[in-house]
Amino acid sequence: MARRWNGWGDDSYVKEVSPHGGALIRSVIGDCQALPDATLADVMAQVPASRLPQHPLISSDAEDRVRHARGQSFPDWLAMRSGKFGTFPDGVAFPESSSQVRELLDLARQHDFEVIPYGGGTSVAGHITPAASQRAILTIDMGRMNQLLDLNEESQIATFGAGTPGPQVESQLRARGYTLGHFPQSWELSTIGGWIASRSSGQQSLRYGRIEQMFAGGRMETLRGSLDIPTIPASSAGPDLREVTMGTEGRMGIFTEVKVRVTRLAEEEKFFVMFMPDWQQAKQAVRELIQQKIPMSMMRVSNAKETRAHAHLGTSESQFKLLDRYLRFRGLTDERCMLTFGVTGSRYQNRTSLKQIRQVLSAHGGVGGIIANMMGSIWAEGRFKFPYLRETTWQQGIAVDTLETATDWDNVDALMQDIERSLESALADEGEQAMVFTHLSHLYGQGSSIYTTYFFRCADSYEQTLARWKKLKGSASSVIAQGRATISHQHGVGKDHAPYLAAEKGELGMAVIRDLLHQFDPDKRLNPSTLLPDD
Amino acid sequence: MARRWNGWGDDSYVKEVSPHGGALIRSVIGDCQALPDATLADVMAQVPASRLPQHPLISSDAEDRVRHARGQSFPDWLAMRSGKFGTFPDGVAFPESSSQVRELLDLARQHDFEVIPYGGGTSVAGHITPAASQRAILTIDMGRMNQLLDLNEESQIATFGAGTPGPQVESQLRARGYTLGHFPQSWELSTIGGWIASRSSGQQSLRYGRIEQMFAGGRMETLRGSLDIPTIPASSAGPDLREVTMGTEGRMGIFTEVKVRVTRLAEEEKFFVMFMPDWQQAKQAVRELIQQKIPMSMMRVSNAKETRAHAHLGTSESQFKLLDRYLRFRGLTDERCMLTFGVTGSRYQNRTSLKQIRQVLSAHGGVGGIIANMMGSIWAEGRFKFPYLRETTWQQGIAVDTLETATDWDNVDALMQDIERSLESALADEGEQAMVFTHLSHLYGQGSSIYTTYFFRCADSYEQTLARWKKLKGSASSVIAQGRATISHQHGVGKDHAPYLAAEKGELGMAVIRDLLHQFDPDKRLNPSTLLPDD
Repeated sequence: MARRWNGWGDDSYVKEVSPHGGALIRSVIGDCQALPDATLADVMAQVPASRLPQHPLISSDAEDRVRHARGQSFPDWLAMRSGKFGTFPDGVAFPESSSQVRELLDLARQHDFEVIPYGGGTSVAGHITPAASQRAILTIDMGRMNQLLDLNEESQIATFGAGTPGPQVESQLRARGYTLGHFPQSWELSTIGGWIASRSSGQQSLRYGRIEQMFAGGRMETLRGSLDIPTIPASSAGPDLREVTMGTEGRMGIFTEVKVRVTRLAEEEKFFVMFMPDWQQAKQAVRELIQQKIPMSMMRVSNAKETRAHAHLGTSESQFKLLDRYLRFRGLTDERCMLTFGVTGSRYQNRTSLKQIRQVLSAHGGVGGIIANMMGSIWAEGRFKFPYLRETTWQQGIAVDTLETATDWDNVDALMQDIERSLESALADEGEQAMVFTHLSHLYGQGSSIYTTYFFRCADSYEQTLARWKKLKGSASSVIAQGRATISHQHGVGKDHAPYLAAEKGELGMAVIRDLLHQFDPDKRLNPSTLLPDD
Repeated sequence: MARRWNGWGDDSYVKEVSPHGGALIRSVIGDCQALPDATLADVMAQVPASRLPQHPLISSDAEDRVRHARGQSFPDWLAMRSGKFGTFPDGVAFPESSSQVRELLDLARQHDFEVIPYGGGTSVAGHITPAASQRAILTIDMGRMNQLLDLNEESQIATFGAGTPGPQVESQLRARGYTLGHFPQSWELSTIGGWIASRSSGQQSLRYGRIEQMFAGGRMETLRGSLDIPTIPASSAGPDLREVTMGTEGRMGIFTEVKVRVTRLAEEEKFFVMFMPDWQQAKQAVRELIQQKIPMSMMRVSNAKETRAHAHLGTSESQFKLLDRYLRFRGLTDERCMLTFGVTGSRYQNRTSLKQIRQVLSAHGGVGGIIANMMGSIWAEGRFKFPYLRETTWQQGIAVDTLETATDWDNVDALMQDIERSLESALADEGEQAMVFTHLSHLYGQGSSIYTTYFFRCADSYEQTLARWKKLKGSASSVIAQGRATISHQHGVGKDHAPYLAAEKGELGMAVIRDLLHQFDPDKRLNPSTLLPDD
């Protein structure tokens, strides 16, 4: 795969947007005009001299530095497309072992430079974007530590180099009959170490759990030495060190080898789509399914706006009309909501689950039938392709971003509506209207994640477009921070969410986190300004 | 319930040991002679004057102080039976609100005294046993904060006073159609706050999870102020504060109100017993069941020694002979291992689970039939009665204790054997032989808990009996600490396990825990010497 230097993923892949999909977006946000893109050569010409010492492990090559300067947040995107990068790392290292990571950390102390750990570079919250600093900045790309080092089949524990990306995690395990089952949307590029450092969650968390349930132990290199966490299935022996390291986002140390709980490949896996009459029926149905603990591997329910948008964006106009006619014939209106779900396991258990699932969905007026299987397979095939959409719409002058949170069931409706309203009205002072829709994709007995997508019109300049995004993001983030919710269910804190963390953790909670990180890194050398704002 | 002042549970309940059960124990450990018990009056007469200030919230009543001086560890037991208590708390408080707990903590700082939080007093590792101190000691009994304060049915979150014991947790929830599903063996007395503070696990953790999965948030009163943890179903926003507080064993603060994830009462719950031909078949079968993720609510497999012992201890001689004859007729020898399991859920799902379970067990030579249902029900009825056994055997001069750990599957066999051997031979220098047996009761894809029971003969004096126990416990604990295992899977660290914690957490891991606790309590006023040895 040739990786796109200024956007998402594989350079050769294009996610088409159908004409009637584009028309739907424009019917809400208005006609759009694209902004001009910078070239890689333009950007490379700006890269300043490195402030790092010369060292065989450190590259100060301009392209390496450009390619490690930004993640995939919307501000990162604007920086890459405009060519106005701001700060570049002074160098990039590609260690091949824990001891080389140690060496680099020792060097950082000795030569007083900062370190940013880099997994797949897929952060959408600014984790790996360097903040301007008086000190030199080294980005440590873990990508060469990408091997399955050990598979203990009896205990179902796999040891990986922390820089192993999703496809290599799965292909190396599949060759032995196993799976990790962690499929975040960033899976094509993001790494196992990054998932742990940022507490990631994947599309099939209903079966396999969040990364918290998979991470069994391993090694983190820190400025205080190596922290080795042994694998133990469960323990009541004091605070759990796994939990202390997860979510520290590179500020405590760098994971080098990680041990994860794997399972044998399931006999059968199937995905389905059904349509529910309206949001209340849809929400109630998925809550019942999850609270009844029916074994499933994924479940996702789109609100009516997302259902409509997906039907336009994901299909040709004639396909859409066919589906629309069928659903109307079955009694569903524009209020209908799309529900996608999957079962993974033995054929026998899947049959039992499906029977129970269909019972609950039918009781709430769900319609599946002939389309259910087909659309389920379409979801499975396209499951990692959504991030490519930004590239396609961008060329039409349409900006797109997503944000997410999680809250208890009794608050899901109110919060979803508040988030959508805040985004729809955030640009009212400019006479601009965003197009907004939402789904729930990680469901718990207690509550659900809320994942909202918003399209808005690029302004006449990059600066104004960034200003628009800041209004949108700030407005929704404030709603979340004041709304009994987490500032992130699956993207992490990074730099973009850091200002909102205190609302959730409280003053004393923030002190706990600050104390912990400062004990490991009193000089704030590791990924400064991430997780804790201005720190 | 009138609570026994010098042992376990309800004063009026006696767990009988059948004559042939007693004979089996004596056939291994030899004839026994009981030690004389002290009376409550003897002990009360020893209680010294209180060093605490007079305060309306503090009782310095001698009986209160005796009844809060010891938990249920074996050394606690010897102290209670001999009447040689050592240190008594200087007073006991029974707060009724968070603000009264705050007031007591403020008082502790002001008057320079120590504080021990007390839930059900069921610790088997010395958590609530006061260490001798120059400072006065106040035990805070949370037992009056024992109400269901709120039940949010939509989000399935129940809020309890932290001092609510198991039966009151369940009865208050059951009245509304809900269950928490946390059933540690101490359930009759232990409290929800204690479960969280010590990371407890219950018999049906396969369905309901460990307390870590149930604890959703709440309030901890600390010397730095109130720590309020909001309920959020899941989050990637930095370190998880729930996880930071769990397992701190009263050294960080005192839980006052806790919010837990509950579920609706299941349609059906059933327990069964089957017998497997030998340990290898039994172990392999349960590993397969758990790694296949078949929905179950409990599973427990006894090794051949425990199977034999239970058959003697739990039944009359004629019942035992009948069972033995039947199992021999079905081809099982003395190597047979008892497997107890349960399913909880919808009738339909349970049927599917049972079919899959029986398939796996049959493939490994399991025998159930007519006895399976009956013995499963017997297990369910007696599930909280094992701790009463100590009372009965004690009167015959037989001492009994249990210990437990957890390790990965590839290490379960070797560790179990090493633990059993270390206990069997620990008293060889005195010519004494312990009777030892083991089961696995908390199973995970990655590994299992190991729970070992040992009987030994009381020596001629209390001091010598304690010395025997120290040899036994020390010997097994060293094996665990050196054996890729946790010093406790479900009992916590307390004072008895503290010396072994560093083997598991490592030097840097211990520093993390120490730093955390000292940030909250630099003067070591809260439960000193617990969790961290000599600290």
